[in-house]
Amino acid sequence: MPITHEIFVDLPGRSYNVSVGVDILTDLGRIVASTTGSAGRVVVITDSNVGAIYADTVRGRLSDASGLCDVIEFPAGEEYKNLATYGDVMDRILALETPIDRRSVVVALGGGVVGDLGGFVAATALRGLPFINVPTTLLADVDAAVGGKTGLNAQAGKNLIGAFHQPSAVIIDAAVLETLPADELGNGLAECVKHGVIRDWALLDFIEDNAAKITSCQADTLAELIGRNVAIKAAVVSADERESGERAHLNFGHTIGHAIETAAGYGLLSHGQAVALGMVAAFHIAESRSLIDSSVVERVRKILAELSLPVQFDDLPNSPSDVRDPKCLRRVMSHDKKALGGVVRFVLPTAPGSVAIFDDVTDDQIEAAVAVLG
Amino acid sequence: MPITHEIFVDLPGRSYNVSVGVDILTDLGRIVASTTGSAGRVVVITDSNVGAIYADTVRGRLSDASGLCDVIEFPAGEEYKNLATYGDVMDRILALETPIDRRSVVVALGGGVVGDLGGFVAATALRGLPFINVPTTLLADVDAAVGGKTGLNAQAGKNLIGAFHQPSAVIIDAAVLETLPADELGNGLAECVKHGVIRDWALLDFIEDNAAKITSCQADTLAELIGRNVAIKAAVVSADERESGERAHLNFGHTIGHAIETAAGYGLLSHGQAVALGMVAAFHIAESRSLIDSSVVERVRKILAELSLPVQFDDLPNSPSDVRDPKCLRRVMSHDKKALGGVVRFVLPTAPGSVAIFDDVTDDQIEAAVAVLG
Repeated sequence: MPITHEIFVDLPGRSYNVSVGVDILTDLGRIVASTTGSAGRVVVITDSNVGAIYADTVRGRLSDASGLCDVIEFPAGEEYKNLATYGDVMDRILALETPIDRRSVVVALGGGVVGDLGGFVAATALRGLPFINVPTTLLADVDAAVGGKTGLNAQAGKNLIGAFHQPSAVIIDAAVLETLPADELGNGLAECVKHGVIRDWALLDFIEDNAAKITSCQADTLAELIGRNVAIKAAVVSADERESGERAHLNFGHTIGHAIETAAGYGLLSHGQAVALGMVAAFHIAESRSLIDSSVVERVRKILAELSLPVQFDDLPNSPSDVRDPKCLRRVMSHDKKALGGVVRFVLPTAPGSVAIFDDVTDDQIEAAVAVLG
Repeated sequence: MPITHEIFVDLPGRSYNVSVGVDILTDLGRIVASTTGSAGRVVVITDSNVGAIYADTVRGRLSDASGLCDVIEFPAGEEYKNLATYGDVMDRILALETPIDRRSVVVALGGGVVGDLGGFVAATALRGLPFINVPTTLLADVDAAVGGKTGLNAQAGKNLIGAFHQPSAVIIDAAVLETLPADELGNGLAECVKHGVIRDWALLDFIEDNAAKITSCQADTLAELIGRNVAIKAAVVSADERESGERAHLNFGHTIGHAIETAAGYGLLSHGQAVALGMVAAFHIAESRSLIDSSVVERVRKILAELSLPVQFDDLPNSPSDVRDPKCLRRVMSHDKKALGGVVRFVLPTAPGSVAIFDDVTDDQIEAAVAVLG
């Protein structure tokens, strides 16, 4: 049960470790106890999918190590990441037979929805409880689990409600990914490609060289992939915890990607598919502004395709019509919570492994890039 | 329109000023604009009582100074400080015709409920917006407005949901207190007495010397009272932002006070009445442990009585029976969110103007102190 990668996320007063390995969930009790002190009592928040597989085992291991462990389960699915579910989970955590106190530890066990909702419960129950994130999807592993963002979807859009609340520890077991559905894998891989583009071009070589092992969910290879990606994410977050500066680089591919996702309606295409298309569009904007040359764009398109991610609208199984309307996409973008005073900020590649922020991307440039997607 | 007191709340990276004066609301636009920069757009959150009196004026002043100002009003009353109201306000702030962005400023205009709920909206909309608190009750002025606590009531108890979110500025106008109902005034005065007991015995002299002017809501005297109390609260909060140490001293009188309030059922007695009784009980515990002598207890009882605050159950207009049951009160206390592992911590006076924390108060001592209340 070795931990293969240990990444230190350096934040003043709130630093923590991300432990990555294969089969390390068997050691969860010890890891949680060593993070929190043995007196800590634990509440696991999970969803119905993950809970059905892991809840009993995890409860057993945490009870052995920490004493008292309750499990709160909510229905699986992005459509439950809302205030109603939050209120229900909050009522249940506040009504446990042995009351929680400010030392009680919330463990979120599941994908991004569980981490976001469980993290927001941890951020706001008794004005903040210690929080351990145990992600179970590649997307959550390489993206949401590190950085302290928690949140819920609102009627007006995704993640518009939330708080920054750093975890006390993140524990990532690559072995649980072996049964991950292809779409879920693609969601994580799109973020891995993004990390390569914004910080580490050599990561793209690793992905290309190991594409077959990665797409077949080979655990050792995924642990290596996760370790490298968490290190990139951790460095960016450490430099800019509250997203006032370079953390915005992580938004590469997401400006048009989120707009495509919103315009299509939740659920019609996956987050990874939307981000892949958003990255291709951002590369085309960069190319049209002569920031990079076409060979770089082609390289990234080739890697995305090898990972079974779309590079044009026609690659989508059911391509919705709204997403091809550039004016609709532009309108959605100005509502994005990262827009400031209606100005849409773009992160664009400036060299392999480097990006910069641009506030002057024109509607014509956006429309031309969307047109290239088909 | 003079600001008579300006108190600096010193917190690393999150310092802010509290401005106290008489009729300074007329200058609100300038103060908000100077705090946020003129580009800021403002959303005022208020309740139906305060909104009916001030919303139009405030909207006009803020629009003149800052450009765009929306007002969101919710029904007045502690019973609306819950997730349902929060969800409604959140939906409305996220659906404004001109979308908010991360520079948009939330101004909470109202009593403690408005500050707590408006502050929690500010803490969690787009993962955190700048927040200016404009309290309109004495309790909010001297207690809730300084310190960054925001929150909602849950089914399981008061303020169990919330976040720490420091304001960018607090603006207190003593003139708005002239029409404050007596119960509301008492809520604030109980906290003023508390501040004297824990940090500044001379404040009790000031209160005693000016009791008539205070209870008749004379604005200049209230501005002086507020300035002195905010300075005490600010010093305590600066020394311990997240309530891990001396900030617990502010809980003096609240351990038994909260239990009395909860056991009675919300609304049967005011917070100030409950805290006054809690302080008297805490003094009796201190006396029974020989921490202070009876003359100090008598002095505090006398001051509370001069302020029309209760010092025994029979002083309450409708004294509920549950609150006289020490076992019931003890059970409620162990559910308090400040209890750790079921241990109830007591703040007890150790000398005039000084308190300390005790973890070893016995059930017998609690029962004896409650018995003294009648």
